[in-house]
Formats: sequence, structure tokens, C-alpha cells
Amino acid sequence: MAEKGVTPRSADYARWYTDVVQKAELADYSPVKGCMVIRPYGYTLWENIQAALDRRFKDTGHVNAYFPLFIPMSFLQKEAEHVQGFAPELAVVTVGGGKELDEPLVVRPTSETIIGHMYSQWIRSYRDLPVLINQWGNVVRWELRTRLFLRTTEFLWQEGHTAHATEQEALEETIRMLGVYADFAINEAAIPVIQGKKSQREKFAGAVDSYTIEAMMGNGWALQSGTSHFLGQNFARAFDITFLNQNNELDHAWTTSWGLSTRMVGAIIMTHGDDQGLVLPPRLAPLQAVIVPIWRKDAEQAAVRELAQRVFALLKAAGIRAKLDDRDELSAGFKFNDWEMRGVPLRIEIGPRDVEQNAVVLARRDVPGKEGKTFGVPVDGLAAAVDAMLTTIQANLLRRATAHRDANTHTVATYDEFKQALEDRGGFIRVHWAGTGEDEDRIKEETKATIRCFPFEKPEGEGVCFYTGRRTDQVAIFARAY
Amino acid sequence: MAEKGVTPRSADYARWYTDVVQKAELADYSPVKGCMVIRPYGYTLWENIQAALDRRFKDTGHVNAYFPLFIPMSFLQKEAEHVQGFAPELAVVTVGGGKELDEPLVVRPTSETIIGHMYSQWIRSYRDLPVLINQWGNVVRWELRTRLFLRTTEFLWQEGHTAHATEQEALEETIRMLGVYADFAINEAAIPVIQGKKSQREKFAGAVDSYTIEAMMGNGWALQSGTSHFLGQNFARAFDITFLNQNNELDHAWTTSWGLSTRMVGAIIMTHGDDQGLVLPPRLAPLQAVIVPIWRKDAEQAAVRELAQRVFALLKAAGIRAKLDDRDELSAGFKFNDWEMRGVPLRIEIGPRDVEQNAVVLARRDVPGKEGKTFGVPVDGLAAAVDAMLTTIQANLLRRATAHRDANTHTVATYDEFKQALEDRGGFIRVHWAGTGEDEDRIKEETKATIRCFPFEKPEGEGVCFYTGRRTDQVAIFARAY
Repeated sequence: MAEKGVTPRSADYARWYTDVVQKAELADYSPVKGCMVIRPYGYTLWENIQAALDRRFKDTGHVNAYFPLFIPMSFLQKEAEHVQGFAPELAVVTVGGGKELDEPLVVRPTSETIIGHMYSQWIRSYRDLPVLINQWGNVVRWELRTRLFLRTTEFLWQEGHTAHATEQEALEETIRMLGVYADFAINEAAIPVIQGKKSQREKFAGAVDSYTIEAMMGNGWALQSGTSHFLGQNFARAFDITFLNQNNELDHAWTTSWGLSTRMVGAIIMTHGDDQGLVLPPRLAPLQAVIVPIWRKDAEQAAVRELAQRVFALLKAAGIRAKLDDRDELSAGFKFNDWEMRGVPLRIEIGPRDVEQNAVVLARRDVPGKEGKTFGVPVDGLAAAVDAMLTTIQANLLRRATAHRDANTHTVATYDEFKQALEDRGGFIRVHWAGTGEDEDRIKEETKATIRCFPFEKPEGEGVCFYTGRRTDQVAIFARAY
Repeated sequence: MAEKGVTPRSADYARWYTDVVQKAELADYSPVKGCMVIRPYGYTLWENIQAALDRRFKDTGHVNAYFPLFIPMSFLQKEAEHVQGFAPELAVVTVGGGKELDEPLVVRPTSETIIGHMYSQWIRSYRDLPVLINQWGNVVRWELRTRLFLRTTEFLWQEGHTAHATEQEALEETIRMLGVYADFAINEAAIPVIQGKKSQREKFAGAVDSYTIEAMMGNGWALQSGTSHFLGQNFARAFDITFLNQNNELDHAWTTSWGLSTRMVGAIIMTHGDDQGLVLPPRLAPLQAVIVPIWRKDAEQAAVRELAQRVFALLKAAGIRAKLDDRDELSAGFKFNDWEMRGVPLRIEIGPRDVEQNAVVLARRDVPGKEGKTFGVPVDGLAAAVDAMLTTIQANLLRRATAHRDANTHTVATYDEFKQALEDRGGFIRVHWAGTGEDEDRIKEETKATIRCFPFEKPEGEGVCFYTGRRTDQVAIFARAY
């Protein structure tokens, strides 16, 4: 039960975030350092995310499978860049069944290595390609500073791993799956992400190139919300994934991997949430509408409850995820706050006057106060009206988040302007970029901003790099990021 | 691609099983000792099992959540019987982020302890009860001798964990969820399981009483296929799960747990499989029908392919999980064997004569040869005919498995008869039982048979215990078991 409000965003954004996660009962701290407990309300949100993604994966020809949690340490070491990137974050099993193990086992931080090994057994000929497999599961990366959903030692995710006969096909797959993530983020989570390529400094350890969807949070920071990696033949070479091509020659496969995690829950919270708590996009919300019956006199109660029950039944029959809050011991005002905290998109109020009119009041979560209320909505045709309202809310959340992102995206011409803009306004800084990796490091050290991506969408022609002064057609988005 | 047949069951049942798992591409061995890779075909079967169970869990008021993979070693030690049971099977993380951990972390073998700890934080009053949570995830139990699906170091499962205000409610939940498992096994997996209580020797470590669904495999051995535990107040005491009851007194909650795992895939294989490979119940089969177009002359090809496409489209539109096998390079005979190995319930053959008649041939997997074929099934109304046939196959599998179970269930009057029956015929031995735990141990040592359960269904009145000669109304089923 959400008893008190949350810290205002303006007072302390980080505390606001943690308050929302806990008071909306999305997640809780666990006694194990850095690990979280995903509570039923948060997990149902994750289930809805999973369903929306899994449908898209299957529509693009992928199947699910499951590979072991434990990976022999020697596997990690086969791809040099990969082990370098992940070694500091590993959790290691050294004892099994009461005995010291001969070879320590790593709890998977990601599964390229073990899956690469299996693909080398399964793939023989070009006829076996492409292999298009996804896995839903848990992974572990030892983190020093953790935040619920955003960075936890254990997290849930999906990781796609595909193998192809040609470079071209693997590249297309990498971009296709990034597009699937963007489509999901925009049309399900109402988050207007930007698609782009990562800099070499920020790419996945072992990839040739990494691609990302980047979202802007309420405080102007960036959140990397899903990544898709073109692995070239790096892992195929490390794990001997070879096949006989159509000319009967032995060739290494081209592989990709792509992942999206429970971090997406954090993205949703920080894109849409407000000082009353969580605001959920209707398409993913565990509950889309909550019905609150209201009466003062005992004589009114039976009729109000009867209508509330009827409304609940008709919404359920229409496939709307509805709940009837008929808790006796709580006031209507308390219930309003409670469901606002939980971000339910639509509240349906039913009082004695509504009973008389055979109508209800709809109150939108995304538009506070009287402005967001529609009075006298007839019970006849209510399911269609609720459905239309949910569509409106979904569209409004996306529109609002897009406006926020655009209003907080700046272009600058010089490094001084860059630093000033970051200091004054934060947000995304969109610039032409011709610097080196070392330049990138220096900017990060001096401003804490990093290249979030080289966006696919950019103007034609060249411009001047704000840092080096060189002409270039490459555009970068810088931001401070989670 | 399934290239060769499987070892006949009569020659070597254990090898037959492994052959089926691998040749039907359900699972593969992994480079990590005791861990398996669940391949897409096997994983899709598991997804269908998950969906059928999850629906039932939600229909009975449960919600899903997620608790950490890692459990502090000290938690395991809080319930004395629990740690004694699980200590020999633990995988232990001793290194995280490059450093030796102060307290080793156990990779969860089951989650009563960590969930009990969280419940103690969440539950305050009788109003917070019952808590009805399920978790889908992976668990690890270090096993010396492993078998794909039946006993692996890591396996996938669901574990329900509930807390209640009264003993009665918790007992009812325990039995309700056992009933859910039985309903699933019988009506989805076509496995005629027997519900009953475990002996104290065989119960879950830390439970007051354990309940089980027991299935009979093709070789007469028993397979414990799902368990539901009444935990009394044992874990509530160990983890301080207390609440204020309606009289405002502090009381310990009553808890239950229940689990069903990927072992169920093994149960399906060994209940229905035959010497041609896998046989899958239509309700859970990844593919319910496979369409094989057949032609000899090139002139016939176009018309056959066109009808095959049309049939595929109409079955998909009707929600039937169908596949069109239009692989060019393979003969029809090869395809028949291939899909029989994979246990697809129904094959739809389409040749030139069928094109002329605008009809198809249906061939049942459960009835081999000509006897299982229906010729000239009209394309008009085909989806309904296929649907009806799938229902018939589902019912036949259950009928057949029930007949097998009943034919291999024996009653005996003396221990000599008991030993003779086990030696000659195997199967379930149903007896009156008044022995002690020590008697049970002795019988296990001498015959390898254990008490699978005390079945709920039993005759009224007393009988004579075959072992002690004492009169008792308690009935036990003994068997050799996986």
C-alpha cells in the first residue's frame, strides 16, 4: 500500500526514482548486495514487455532456446576483447557438490561464448544457416554501484544470437533487430528512442560495431535501452563456427547478438513518471483501468457497488486489464492516490449520481485534476470509450516524451558552448564530430558526457566538428548517461 | 535433421530415451558437466507447458514475481532439515568482481529461504494474507549422475510460494495446486498421474508433508512429475514471517511451496514415445500438423505445391500449429521419418491424386501404418477435420497411457510376491502399508523400490500390510523410480 507521496523530482531526482520503484511496489532491495526482488506489479510489467518483444522476435523468424547458466572460465578467455571487458564483473562458482572445482565456472554475464561453442557443433553447411535463436534468462555482472532496474548485479533480459552465411546478412539482422527494439520502445513503451551506432569506445566487448536505442529520461540524462551487435567473424573464429558454403569451401559464419533487459522498466519510469508517482503506457500497464466505487450514505452503497461490478465485468469481457477496488476500509481519496502512485492509466469513478445517469467518470493519469476528467460517460458503449481513451493516453505519452526530448536537444558550435549547455540545461547535445577516441575520453573526464550514438537520422552534407574544428559528415549525440 | 532411427526400447530403454532427446533435437549435452542445452524444438514444448500452467496459476489467483539467483549461505542454515537436505548439492559463488566474498553465495537450489526472508518484510497483518506468488526461473542442484531433462545440474522450473493466515488455508492451497498439476498432466500432457502424499522419508527437506503426482513411464518405472509441499510454520519460524491476526495477536504464517520442472518433458517422452521416436500430445506439441507435398513428375509439382500452400494457410488461419515441409532436396520418405522422430501428431500428405479430388491424406502419429491413415479428407472443412482429429489423438494418448499404467499396476500379499512382481513385471505395486521408515529403507536397499506415494484414491476399510502383516487402512504405491 502506497502510504505517502514521493520526493519531488525537482528536489532529488535520484530519490524520486527510488521512491517510485518502492512505493509503486515494482521492486525491493534484497539481502544480497546489488540484487533486487521484482515484485508482482513490476514483474507483470516485465511480462507485458516480454510478450510484446517475443511476438516481434517470432514474427521476424526467431525461435527461443535455453543455454547453461554456467560457462567454463576458459571459454571467456577465447575472445581477447570479450574477456577483457567482462573479467572485472564476473561472479565465479568455485565449489560444487561440496568439492573445489577443477575449472571455475563463471555465472554468465552474457552468452556469446557458450552459444558460440554450441553453434560450432550444430552448423555444418550453408543449409543450416541462418540460425536465429533468442534466449530469455538471467545474467550476472558484478556491479559496485547499483540502482534498482537500471544497474543490478543480476538482471533479467533476452539475448538474441544469430549466425549467418554472409557479412551482409549479419549486418541486416543487426539493424533489423535494432529496428524491432525501436518499434517496441516507441509503439509499446511510448519512448521516442533514437537509433544509432555506438562509438568504438562504447561498443560491446568483442563486437565489430554496436548499435543502440537511446532514450532521454525526465532529467535530461540518456539511458541506453537496448543494443544490437554486429560481431563480424570474431566469435566464429574464437569458437570455430564454420560451414561449407555453396562452393563447398569452409568458411567462418558471421554472427550477431542483441539484448534488452529489465532496465527498460527504469526507462519507462523515468520517461513518463511525475511527482505523483508512476505513469504507465496503457499498452504495457499491468492494469489499464481501475474502478473506484464511491458512496457516502449506506443507502447508496448497494447500487454503486452493483454498477461497479457491472462495469468491471464489461471491461474484462472486452479484454481490458481492469481492477475493481472494492476495499472497504479505505477512503476514495486514499485509493485515488494509491492508483496514481502505481501509474494506472485510467481511473473510473462511480458514485450515486453516476448510478442515476447509468454513466461513469473517467479520470486520466496523464492529465492531472479536473482537466483530465470526463463526466457522464454512458455505460452503454463504455468498453469502446475506455479503449479509445487508452489509445489517446498512449499517444499523448509518446507526444509528450517526444516534445521533452526535442526541447532538451541542443546543438553547439564550440567546446565552451558544449560545456555551458551541459551545465545549464543538460539533455542531448547534437554535434558534428571528427574527434578521436582519446578526444572522447578527455571530454568524458572533463564533462561526464559521452557519445551516446552516431544517429542514423542526420542532415545531409558536412559540418564543422565542435571539438576539432574539422569538417565531417558524422553527427554525434553527447549526453550524461546512466 | 534426424538421420537415423533410435535404439529400440526393448534393446536398451535408457539409450532409446537419450536417442529420442537428441535425434528429435529436444536438447543437447553442454560442455558444462551436468548442464544441458534446451534446443528450440524442446524449448517450444517447454513454452507450451509454461503457458498451460501459467494460465492455471493465474486462474487460481496467483501472480508471478522474481527473487534473486544468489542466496547468502547463512539463509540456507536457518532451517535445519532444509540445509541438511540441500547442502550436498550446492553450487557456491566465492568470488565476485575479482574479490573473495566475505560470505559465500549459494546459487539457489530452491527459493524458500530468500522468499521467506522477503515475506517477513512484506507481511504485517492478516490483511496482507494470503500471499500467492509464483516464480519462473532456473535452479541449480549439483548432481553426480545426470540425464537430459530428468536430472540436470541446472534446470528450469516454476516454484510457487504462498503464505496464509491459517493452517487450514495453507493445507487447502497445497492440495489445490497438486490438483492443478494433475489437471495439467492429464488434460494437457495426456499423462494419467496418480495424486498422493509422500512418505516422511521422501518428503521435501523442511516440509511437514509433501504431495506428488506420480507418472508411470513406458518401462514401468515411476517419475515424480510435480510436488506440492505443506511447510507448516517451519519456514515462517526460521524467517520470522509473522502477522497481526484479527484478534491483534502476533502469529506465524503458514506457508506452502510447489514446483514443476523441465523434467515434465522427460515424462512426456517416456509416457508416449515409441520405437519411431517422440510422440507428442497435440495440446502441447510445438507443431500439431506437418504438411508434406509429394510428386513424381515435374508436371505435377506446381499444382501439388499450390494446394499444400492453401492447406497451410487455412490451418494457420484456424489457429492450428502447422508447418509446410517444402524442402526440395529431401524425399517424402525421409520427411515422414523426420517428422515421426519429432513426434508431430498429424501428417498431412498431398499428392497429385489429392489435387484432383481437392482432398488430402491424414496420417496419425499415434497409430502407425495404413491403419492410422484417412484418405480423401476434403479440403473444404479441413481445419475442423484436423481439429477433431487432434482431439481424438489427444484422447487416445491418454487412454493408451492409462491402459498401460493399469496393466502394469499389481497388488501383492507378501514380500516374496512383491520381490517377484518387481523382478518379473516391474510397474507399480499397490499394497497396504503399516511399516516404519526403517522398513522402507530396507525394502529400498533390497529391491530398489521406494514408496512413490500414499494415493488419495484408495478403497475404504482396512487390509493387511504385505510387509509387517499388521492391519491398516493406509495404501502405498511402490515402484522403481527415476
